[in-house]
Amino acid sequence: MTLGEDVTLDALPLREDLRGRSPYGAPQLDVAVRLNTNENPYPPPVELVEDVQAAVRAAAESLHRYPDRDATELRRDLADYLTVATRVLLDERNLWAANGSNEILQQILQAFGGPGRSALGFEPSYSMHPIIAAGTRTDWVPTPRRDDFSLDTEAAAAIVARRQPDVVFVTSPNNPTGGSIPFGELGAVLEAAPGIVVVDEAYAEFSSQPSAVSLLESFPEKLIVSRTMSKAFAFAGGRLGYLAAAPAIVDALQLVRLPYHLSSLTQAAARAALRHADATLASVAKLAAERDRVAESLLGLGFTPVPSDANFILFGRFADAQASWQSYVDKGVLIRDVGIPGHLRVTVGTPEENDAFLEVSKEIPR
Amino acid sequence: MTLGEDVTLDALPLREDLRGRSPYGAPQLDVAVRLNTNENPYPPPVELVEDVQAAVRAAAESLHRYPDRDATELRRDLADYLTVATRVLLDERNLWAANGSNEILQQILQAFGGPGRSALGFEPSYSMHPIIAAGTRTDWVPTPRRDDFSLDTEAAAAIVARRQPDVVFVTSPNNPTGGSIPFGELGAVLEAAPGIVVVDEAYAEFSSQPSAVSLLESFPEKLIVSRTMSKAFAFAGGRLGYLAAAPAIVDALQLVRLPYHLSSLTQAAARAALRHADATLASVAKLAAERDRVAESLLGLGFTPVPSDANFILFGRFADAQASWQSYVDKGVLIRDVGIPGHLRVTVGTPEENDAFLEVSKEIPR
Repeated sequence: MTLGEDVTLDALPLREDLRGRSPYGAPQLDVAVRLNTNENPYPPPVELVEDVQAAVRAAAESLHRYPDRDATELRRDLADYLTVATRVLLDERNLWAANGSNEILQQILQAFGGPGRSALGFEPSYSMHPIIAAGTRTDWVPTPRRDDFSLDTEAAAAIVARRQPDVVFVTSPNNPTGGSIPFGELGAVLEAAPGIVVVDEAYAEFSSQPSAVSLLESFPEKLIVSRTMSKAFAFAGGRLGYLAAAPAIVDALQLVRLPYHLSSLTQAAARAALRHADATLASVAKLAAERDRVAESLLGLGFTPVPSDANFILFGRFADAQASWQSYVDKGVLIRDVGIPGHLRVTVGTPEENDAFLEVSKEIPR
Repeated sequence: MTLGEDVTLDALPLREDLRGRSPYGAPQLDVAVRLNTNENPYPPPVELVEDVQAAVRAAAESLHRYPDRDATELRRDLADYLTVATRVLLDERNLWAANGSNEILQQILQAFGGPGRSALGFEPSYSMHPIIAAGTRTDWVPTPRRDDFSLDTEAAAAIVARRQPDVVFVTSPNNPTGGSIPFGELGAVLEAAPGIVVVDEAYAEFSSQPSAVSLLESFPEKLIVSRTMSKAFAFAGGRLGYLAAAPAIVDALQLVRLPYHLSSLTQAAARAALRHADATLASVAKLAAERDRVAESLLGLGFTPVPSDANFILFGRFADAQASWQSYVDKGVLIRDVGIPGHLRVTVGTPEENDAFLEVSKEIPR
């Protein structure tokens, strides 16, 4: 008997738009092969673990003190990483960081969205975009992609010009479908947008396309490029999202961020992980090669994988995707039902995990 | 020259209500004696630091995986701590945790406040309450305390009954004024409230009053008691806020929380810190004794300290509080100008820090 358990959710004065909803999140099941949340399958190298340990130890000695509210050193390290990765000169005033890119996106909508404002996204895409829009009471304007899940940027620019959304989300590579927007086509969407354009590059390290960071110079008053350390950096457990933008945009987010939002442990651990970026990112080429092998094999098995530029593959067709998902789970392989009819999404794992997935795939009802 | 630095904040499509604001936060100055943010002055004991280090090391080996989204083990440990501290039987379904109590409060207003709804607080009080209300677009209804900063609970109940706010904040001990609400008087406010009542107990461990947790059984559909590990637990750098409430209220917050909001490092470090609660909380009695000594000394110096039940003291009178604050800084003592005319707030530090503060106080212009 838990104290207060006779009170029901229905009896609470909950916001009306939350009634009947369920919390976001993939099932966290204890299954042998977990290929459902686009994590990097390779554990951090031992040197990284030891460096995190030492950095956290040092930070722990001052745990009684609040962290650096501006996370200046971490932002400088992120700027250095991104400068080298994108060949665009950035400094700490161009960077901002938070507890996962979800918090980054929430802060963006708190500053530039909200009641009476709208955000537009090209669906299917990252399902947290409309959820965070709802959480900040920003009207969500869903706009379809082509039937093959690619983005028709000409049509996209036209609809942005017509709808005049305050914020536009462009996910590249797109989750859960995997394709990138050809770099040369992004400018058209930026030209058309009246307000902020967030290019969500959570999977950028896996992509063959250049980063939108190189467009910051042309669109400093509009463009925000969001990133995460959860995927390529193998830092999902550490929760570190970040963005690159003009300094004034970072200043705007400082008006809505909760003070001391990034703990001193997070700041120390993320800086340690960045010191080992070369080692962690070495997995990216391996994963890209495995991605191509898995896609090829799925094709050989008669599936239709969507061309992917990320560390996951959307594939079909299933008569009943949900039943097929359960069938995978029953055979010890956890993948993701992302709600696209006829399709499931698999994260690229280690070669052994991928083999297990492919083996099981032969027996799945379609 | 920083990329994009010629873009000004005014040129951005910022929400209108944010224009002209500055980010929340006390100045982070490098001064010898820092008594401005109500931190615990005693560094964590070496056993705690070592336990945090070991726990984080273990968690770091799985950094490539997302954390437990529900933080179940941490919530169980918090429930055990609070059960022993308050003598009220709680389990993990009664507990929720986030990155600091600010995130807890933001989630509460996202679920139960928002546009078209209102939150009422008794001012002066914790200045983040109206800021988080603004961030979630909840109307803020400021209501005055008595001239001596105590809360007239009879009048408070009457105004709550008249204004019908969706959420009521009651801070006890109150920050920045220091007094607690007599335990027997809280029920009247709860009876009168039509919706949620948040009792903000950030400083509860320093207080001589029982916790509002013991009212949960009578008001399970209304009461949320919020807490933090930042103060008594000497864990400000770790950023861990939590609450106790009926399970349905925790379910409601799961609808608005960002998924994986608490990193695996935060969960591991907070659990380690809780294992050393006895050692950390041993500082509480020392700090309460020092608080009483500092208040007495201030009185002896001709100041008027407000009776405090927390780890800080609001005191006056100053003809120009801001000038006097600067005068303290110039003499190497950082305290807080909380915006109450004629008053400043000092955090209780170590005996040496308190002596330094008292010595400097003799020379401050009033």
